[in-house]
Amino acid sequence: MASTTQRLKVIGWTDDGAVTLLDQTQLPAEEVYLSLRTVDEMVEAIQALRVRGAPLIGIAAAMGLAAAARAAEEEGVDPAGEWLADAVQRLGSARPTAVNLRWALERVVQNVERKRAAENGTPDRVPMSDLLRAEAELLWREDEEMCAAIGRAGARLVPERARVMTHCNAGMLATGGIGTALGVIYTAREEGKEVEVVSCEARPLRQGGRLTAWELSRNGVPVTVIVDSAAGMVMRSGVDLVVTGADRIASNGDTANKIGTYNLAVLAQAHGIPFYIAAPSSTFDLSLPAGERIPIEVRSESEVPTAPGATVYNPAFDVTPQNLIAGIITERGLITPPFEENIQALLGGK
Amino acid sequence: MASTTQRLKVIGWTDDGAVTLLDQTQLPAEEVYLSLRTVDEMVEAIQALRVRGAPLIGIAAAMGLAAAARAAEEEGVDPAGEWLADAVQRLGSARPTAVNLRWALERVVQNVERKRAAENGTPDRVPMSDLLRAEAELLWREDEEMCAAIGRAGARLVPERARVMTHCNAGMLATGGIGTALGVIYTAREEGKEVEVVSCEARPLRQGGRLTAWELSRNGVPVTVIVDSAAGMVMRSGVDLVVTGADRIASNGDTANKIGTYNLAVLAQAHGIPFYIAAPSSTFDLSLPAGERIPIEVRSESEVPTAPGATVYNPAFDVTPQNLIAGIITERGLITPPFEENIQALLGGK
Repeated sequence: MASTTQRLKVIGWTDDGAVTLLDQTQLPAEEVYLSLRTVDEMVEAIQALRVRGAPLIGIAAAMGLAAAARAAEEEGVDPAGEWLADAVQRLGSARPTAVNLRWALERVVQNVERKRAAENGTPDRVPMSDLLRAEAELLWREDEEMCAAIGRAGARLVPERARVMTHCNAGMLATGGIGTALGVIYTAREEGKEVEVVSCEARPLRQGGRLTAWELSRNGVPVTVIVDSAAGMVMRSGVDLVVTGADRIASNGDTANKIGTYNLAVLAQAHGIPFYIAAPSSTFDLSLPAGERIPIEVRSESEVPTAPGATVYNPAFDVTPQNLIAGIITERGLITPPFEENIQALLGGK
Repeated sequence: MASTTQRLKVIGWTDDGAVTLLDQTQLPAEEVYLSLRTVDEMVEAIQALRVRGAPLIGIAAAMGLAAAARAAEEEGVDPAGEWLADAVQRLGSARPTAVNLRWALERVVQNVERKRAAENGTPDRVPMSDLLRAEAELLWREDEEMCAAIGRAGARLVPERARVMTHCNAGMLATGGIGTALGVIYTAREEGKEVEVVSCEARPLRQGGRLTAWELSRNGVPVTVIVDSAAGMVMRSGVDLVVTGADRIASNGDTANKIGTYNLAVLAQAHGIPFYIAAPSSTFDLSLPAGERIPIEVRSESEVPTAPGATVYNPAFDVTPQNLIAGIITERGLITPPFEENIQALLGGK
């Protein structure tokens, strides 16, 4: 990706082991980096969408766990046992819809506990915070590789000259790598394809208008922002494909993603435009047979200003039924219908 | 309407013959009334959407013409002839999509010129500004009656207990009466039906989130505001009908209205929900065979803030093809498919 695509510094470590992250609520006006070293600070950052995107909040939570464990150790608290269980519980329930968050924390803790068990009795044990940090970094590196693999798998679906519509932000600002939906676009461009992007604004928090526009512009990708309700009109004037990320995918392919994804899927079908989801395998929740059991976060009315006396209903996500999806682009390849069988075949043993 | 519905003071005259109007850009935060007495002031108010809604901008332009004619007379300028032609041209081209604007001005001028011709040679002629004012008031009164008739025709389509979705604002803030789409809702409630409204926000200027929510709340109608991209999810959870206003309707029924109306029509069809347009006959442009020749206003990029380097495409309207429309509610009754024939039959001689 190095040639034309400049990687953004979205998350990292400070010298003293805190997590530093780009406050995405301040973009595109300002690039403000925060330093977080407690569980509460990371929970606040995730809930306030300072850090967001299903894969990235998994990585951020794992990194936050390591940073908080180090802070605990420095205060003489052993972060094993009760401390760890409490921290994982609080981080894991910061947002309900994306499954990657809990998946990431569970994986980190399982691996750390396995290592601890293996070193049973060793006197000079590695501090818990170092084990957690190593696991968080592994998660991050793997996500980076998964994005690259998703990019390669998805780029095949992009014509030589393409106008691609996307929603919200499923890019470098949402993952540990080049992104999922935007990873497909970056990779297609690296392969020499002429790709321009139509970014739906994604009210109420405008991750499309603010973040995708900022990220793509910085990487030299032509991007046009539209209000969400202009999607139909723009599709009618010519869009080659729609690709979005995902927050949770049920075992039949039903997909929860940013509110408005379902609108786009219905509109894409009405215009004969293929609609794709791009997401790593950690986004699948094979315990759910279908989308109606995915918990949908309803956010504050204050995100949608209105008149006194009026009510606001502000769901952050919707569920796109699998029959509207042409394919799900994962790091293990493209999954096409029939989804139940093909998801099971590719990911059943994940 | 008096029993439960309180009429808003949206437009009127000052004692000295200027037009006073509620600045809709300030709602719902503040109720600010402006006094306008020149063509330039009214053009600015229309372009900046201080006054908006296809029927109301026709009335406002006609009232503005009368006020400006009076100001001209006071300065010793005869507003007949060249002055009038220039004023009509400037007011009529303030916004391109709504046909009512030009229709209203043309009607006012034709009627005034007919009256002038009839009083040919009379020494004590009525001042031109008085003739214009009388015509503007006639237009206003007729629009009020048309809204009431649209309300009666449309209320029949509303079930006893109904959840009705609407877009933008087609109410008292958009007409000289109780509104078109909202007129249907007010009338159904007057008839004792339990109607609650889902108001799509209508980015970028949020006429749904700001104006429809404000107007309905003040009139005691339960209203829930959603972002435009939540429309699909909400339709899936149960909506009985969708009704919006219109800015221009071609002779085959294709309808230009606020950007996002087309999205809603596609979504309504996908959910088996009837989609209605409510508009007075002055909204029809029988000179156009179909919607693709309706001029679509593209507004400033500044209405949709984004990142430096990104482009914004900000069309204010879209066109809903007639095949997605269950019926068009006019003051002369409901028009159903086949639209070409039925529009011609009902309005061909308008």
